[in-house]
Amino acid sequence: MSSMWGERIRISIFGGSHTAAIGVTVDGLPAGEPIDLEAVARQMARRAPGTTPTATARRESDRPQILCGLLDGVLTGAPLTAVLENRDTRSKDYSDLKRHPRPGHADYTAFVRYGGFNDIRGGGHFSGRLTAPLVFAGAVARQILARRGVFAASHVLSVGPVTDRSLDPVQPEPALLERLSQETFPVLDPAVRTWMEEAIASARAQGDSLGGVVEAIVAGLPAGLGDPMFDGVENLFASLLFGIPAVKGVEFGAGFAAAGMTGSQNNDPFYTDGSGCVRTRGNHAGGSLGGITTGMPVVFRVAFKPTPSIAQEQETVDLSTGESARLTVSGRHDPCIVPRAAPVVEAAACLAALELMARQGLLTQRRGPRGE
Amino acid sequence: MSSMWGERIRISIFGGSHTAAIGVTVDGLPAGEPIDLEAVARQMARRAPGTTPTATARRESDRPQILCGLLDGVLTGAPLTAVLENRDTRSKDYSDLKRHPRPGHADYTAFVRYGGFNDIRGGGHFSGRLTAPLVFAGAVARQILARRGVFAASHVLSVGPVTDRSLDPVQPEPALLERLSQETFPVLDPAVRTWMEEAIASARAQGDSLGGVVEAIVAGLPAGLGDPMFDGVENLFASLLFGIPAVKGVEFGAGFAAAGMTGSQNNDPFYTDGSGCVRTRGNHAGGSLGGITTGMPVVFRVAFKPTPSIAQEQETVDLSTGESARLTVSGRHDPCIVPRAAPVVEAAACLAALELMARQGLLTQRRGPRGE
Amino acid sequence: MSSMWGERIRISIFGGSHTAAIGVTVDGLPAGEPIDLEAVARQMARRAPGTTPTATARRESDRPQILCGLLDGVLTGAPLTAVLENRDTRSKDYSDLKRHPRPGHADYTAFVRYGGFNDIRGGGHFSGRLTAPLVFAGAVARQILARRGVFAASHVLSVGPVTDRSLDPVQPEPALLERLSQETFPVLDPAVRTWMEEAIASARAQGDSLGGVVEAIVAGLPAGLGDPMFDGVENLFASLLFGIPAVKGVEFGAGFAAAGMTGSQNNDPFYTDGSGCVRTRGNHAGGSLGGITTGMPVVFRVAFKPTPSIAQEQETVDLSTGESARLTVSGRHDPCIVPRAAPVVEAAACLAALELMARQGLLTQRRGPRGE
Amino acid sequence: MSSMWGERIRISIFGGSHTAAIGVTVDGLPAGEPIDLEAVARQMARRAPGTTPTATARRESDRPQILCGLLDGVLTGAPLTAVLENRDTRSKDYSDLKRHPRPGHADYTAFVRYGGFNDIRGGGHFSGRLTAPLVFAGAVARQILARRGVFAASHVLSVGPVTDRSLDPVQPEPALLERLSQETFPVLDPAVRTWMEEAIASARAQGDSLGGVVEAIVAGLPAGLGDPMFDGVENLFASLLFGIPAVKGVEFGAGFAAAGMTGSQNNDPFYTDGSGCVRTRGNHAGGSLGGITTGMPVVFRVAFKPTPSIAQEQETVDLSTGESARLTVSGRHDPCIVPRAAPVVEAAACLAALELMARQGLLTQRRGPRGE
Repeated sequence: MSSMWGERIRISIFGGSHTAAIGVTVDGLPAGEPIDLEAVARQMARRAPGTTPTATARRESDRPQILCGLLDGVLTGAPLTAVLENRDTRSKDYSDLKRHPRPGHADYTAFVRYGGFNDIRGGGHFSGRLTAPLVFAGAVARQILARRGVFAASHVLSVGPVTDRSLDPVQPEPALLERLSQETFPVLDPAVRTWMEEAIASARAQGDSLGGVVEAIVAGLPAGLGDPMFDGVENLFASLLFGIPAVKGVEFGAGFAAAGMTGSQNNDPFYTDGSGCVRTRGNHAGGSLGGITTGMPVVFRVAFKPTPSIAQEQETVDLSTGESARLTVSGRHDPCIVPRAAPVVEAAACLAALELMARQGLLTQRRGPRGE
Repeated sequence: MSSMWGERIRISIFGGSHTAAIGVTVDGLPAGEPIDLEAVARQMARRAPGTTPTATARRESDRPQILCGLLDGVLTGAPLTAVLENRDTRSKDYSDLKRHPRPGHADYTAFVRYGGFNDIRGGGHFSGRLTAPLVFAGAVARQILARRGVFAASHVLSVGPVTDRSLDPVQPEPALLERLSQETFPVLDPAVRTWMEEAIASARAQGDSLGGVVEAIVAGLPAGLGDPMFDGVENLFASLLFGIPAVKGVEFGAGFAAAGMTGSQNNDPFYTDGSGCVRTRGNHAGGSLGGITTGMPVVFRVAFKPTPSIAQEQETVDLSTGESARLTVSGRHDPCIVPRAAPVVEAAACLAALELMARQGLLTQRRGPRGE
Repeated sequence: MSSMWGERIRISIFGGSHTAAIGVTVDGLPAGEPIDLEAVARQMARRAPGTTPTATARRESDRPQILCGLLDGVLTGAPLTAVLENRDTRSKDYSDLKRHPRPGHADYTAFVRYGGFNDIRGGGHFSGRLTAPLVFAGAVARQILARRGVFAASHVLSVGPVTDRSLDPVQPEPALLERLSQETFPVLDPAVRTWMEEAIASARAQGDSLGGVVEAIVAGLPAGLGDPMFDGVENLFASLLFGIPAVKGVEFGAGFAAAGMTGSQNNDPFYTDGSGCVRTRGNHAGGSLGGITTGMPVVFRVAFKPTPSIAQEQETVDLSTGESARLTVSGRHDPCIVPRAAPVVEAAACLAALELMARQGLLTQRRGPRGE
Repeated sequence: MSSMWGERIRISIFGGSHTAAIGVTVDGLPAGEPIDLEAVARQMARRAPGTTPTATARRESDRPQILCGLLDGVLTGAPLTAVLENRDTRSKDYSDLKRHPRPGHADYTAFVRYGGFNDIRGGGHFSGRLTAPLVFAGAVARQILARRGVFAASHVLSVGPVTDRSLDPVQPEPALLERLSQETFPVLDPAVRTWMEEAIASARAQGDSLGGVVEAIVAGLPAGLGDPMFDGVENLFASLLFGIPAVKGVEFGAGFAAAGMTGSQNNDPFYTDGSGCVRTRGNHAGGSLGGITTGMPVVFRVAFKPTPSIAQEQETVDLSTGESARLTVSGRHDPCIVPRAAPVVEAAACLAALELMARQGLLTQRRGPRGE
């Protein structure tokens, strides 16, 4: 099983929805970086349920306890480990699921993969709860990147049939990116949020759920990062993004739309800007050519399928007998996790960006009073 | 730089468009597997230019020379290496490109990444030519999979505005998959191919190019393969697919369309078929839940941007002076590589599928007359 | 920084001597394996100080708290994480060390590597304390191996000038291996232990320290495990063993002694035993030929340099001024860690053995009442 | 099977003793480095048989053909692949070996690992011939290191009972290292070479073989390279060294001798030299503390078992019948490969050193006329 990722910056995520705790270890972060734990907590709060009306009623404790790796508010260079206790759980909601796999969930596949010994409570290791440690790790990465002029942000591009306008992939305003990266349920057009919330409430009322798309951007990465073929920008980002539950598609730049363009439309011409920097007019490339950064923002979109846990009755099988069965998922479930997924997507983007920089030797060690 | 991929099945791709040769090493293949080199050659021919009217006039030599790893037609278990000589090259077509990066190509990014020392001839290591070794490796994997009841196929889902109908993601006919996996420019509806060819010819006449989408399927993988989070089905396939030049998007199952569905629409109910096998009605999941195979076909789509090399004049910069420049790409270029990309996508699918099986210990060693 | 190891069985060790806690995550263990935590605790106790007269007075708390991965005493297949709180610490013993690196320790090298931001308290992440999580992981692996007929054991082959007799590398008695793997300060000849303890006490009295060698054996691995070149038996074991603090040499089978043998002496002839099993007479190969197991026990030796922390005054530099300085290490230090290192070596051996089996697909999933 | 190694600098070795060719791909080398192929050839010649009276009569062709990665004598940054044709082979020498595994060789273990399908001719992929590609890769790395002030050298420390004196591990003379790294059968004391050659000739006359030890040094690595635990200096070097055929032990600094020292003897005190550089008096640490370089030379020793192929008759089994059998290995075999192994050990050292530097971002890209 691999809940570990990375080469220079390595993360190891552990825990399940109903285990004693969940957490993450991040190995390879540069020593000497000050980490503002309040800012980290704010990123984690963007993801936490109970903070917006559309989310699940379950209150999770998202105040991470740092076990190691941080001393006097500064990274030591040793592995950084944070754990989150699981407290607000209701085990009995899941008692029926050992025999009746929920459609769209990993119940059945984990049953086969783990011979039936998988921890099924709350979805176990497959639970969306496990995105909290990922957000922690990404929030730490975010601060290291910010010091080097690299910023990630995202917004909910669509929820069901409701669509926000798109980010400017060429020269997004820094103030906009700053605002988005602090918001819970970030959107470009505030009016759209209202319609999205209504669509979600409507789905909840019908015992159903909605999917959506998150659009994200990483600005400030210099040109020349990445490797061709299998360790390029897209490979790296996608390898993390597809690790977020419910993700069914990832596209960069013009993405699937590029498939319908002509070359003369899709190519981004080069030019030199006022300060002698090579840039492109337009950014259909999404900041990457041949797997290597161009210096333009890295822009991508992530498609989330609708939450599988719906209140409507569904058909399933009884894994003991093989017979048909009807299933009604009770308990507390998000009818749409997309707004909460935005900070998770950003966290993944921050980690991928940090890894890219680390591989090119750009995460130079700071030297401070202690290091003469 | 990483042109190496994999953990149990490892591939190492080398070469550039105008180097002495290109090739691939595949390490970790099970010993004892007979490999039919004619069948491998047929797969490589599906990719080769000069076999269809829409492709480039350049004739490449795609007859691989096996340096090691195969003895008396059977894999020895040692690394398998195949090389292809580069013969039919016209260097002078690229002489201008050291200073004038082509929009949409990796010229500029490689220039930055490699300090200007990258081999720019024919696109160097970024050339589409480097998909030939990938097809070789995938063709070998294909035969190993076939013996275990696993089959991959694909078709050109769209070229520019022309769209084929979709594959049946639930129970595709084996005969159909067989036919598609042998065709050059595979489509479900032959009439569509004609329209696609016309669209490509039209683009060529305008000195322009078209993109498209390849839809692929892997049938026969048992349930329970893959790992959650970062080593799931989607992560593994995507890590290879984004290594194919021009790929800008990858989606699984309902993909981006799932984002617009409700949960009741997108969930695939479970049932038991006549032979006691658990299956789903519908396959919006694309054969994967929680990163683990369900036993239903793995279905995915890959978006290719239009070929960057177009005959129309384009704007670029002069990397020596920083000044604006005009560029006209001459030479022989595919106005649409999507038909040729289908076998490349299948090759990647075969390698990913083989890796999935290898990680679960399913590639059992054969034991034959030599091995008592 | 990589405190992560493994491909199929992955471990991530975190923590420092004086951080809130230390621990380990193990990812990839087969689901369904019952784990006896008392047996794990007994292995950890073999390593803990305070249990033998030669060890440090510091009392560590070695009762691991399981955060996830174990449910009702059975592995779930999800990552298994255990943490140990650090309680019995005396920070003030190390206050002088930021400027005066201790000879033989990682103080100086970590200072350079981490720009002076490394956590120096108690040696930080380099402390021998960090072998406790490794022993936890190895103890879990031990139980999984035992069920499959694989057993690891070791003994203190030498401490300073005192040498125990060697293990029988061909057919060690199972009862002997069982006894050794339960003993603290395991030796073949109990009389030797007394002499070793005296040598250690003598060194302590002189404010000095001693090194030694641990000899270990893994019995029961079938033939045919491992890969040639860089993923062979020796490579795998050595990659873990050299991660144990103070290790300066690793040898397999006849090891360095083989360098002084002739081929006719060193070669192990093959023969078939009563049950038709291929074995060798003698085992100079140490159970590995060409990096692949022969089926004979894997036998190896690990050299530990003497504990760097000695009470005698030593010469060092003042890192702030560059000037010469004298250093006296105070506090509580083991004059010889070799007896405590034996269970650590065994833990590493268990993990390497488990990884070998996992790569060949031999860790088949159990299927129990929950998994039909 | 993994004949691939590395993270930033990746090598992939392929081929077998009697396949069409053998070779290596090196991925991740910095672009812009000039490579002197004559100097590479000289390193490979140090390893080649037929150049000294003690070696095998087989003439191998060790002139590598560069397939890609080098353009106008300069690395392009793309994978570098070199192949060597296998020409001077006598297949019939090995015809009996499919059924009668040679003691001390990988015949039996490969038979089990690969179900009997392994290529047994000349030892296949396990042949010492496969050290030629490793020397090629190491020779390229050597030149990149030299430009950065890092130099590797070795000598034959012992052959059977004959021992050379040891290298100065503190401040070896650059001229001495230069001489050793150019010599075939390098020794510190030329008289010793004569005795070693006599010992080898004597062994050959008796149809036997000898082992030995190679001592090596890497000078010039700055302090602060490496990572604690599993990616330290020793782990990295050992992971490559144990991939060299016949290696049974690796030790660093004082190595196994440190086990017999006291701490006051083994610790290397720190001091500042005339130029303000921190150094140690003595170098029992072998240039590494806590897995991180100290700035002192990295010094290590590698133990080679005696060549298994001896002319004396040996006992083995018949793998088809299980019955006992007698075996006489005919053909051309080195009675002692240690002199030829010295350049192989140096090659491994160069690659490990380059990887260490790459991970810390020290392999900065050159920028030349082409890269403005």
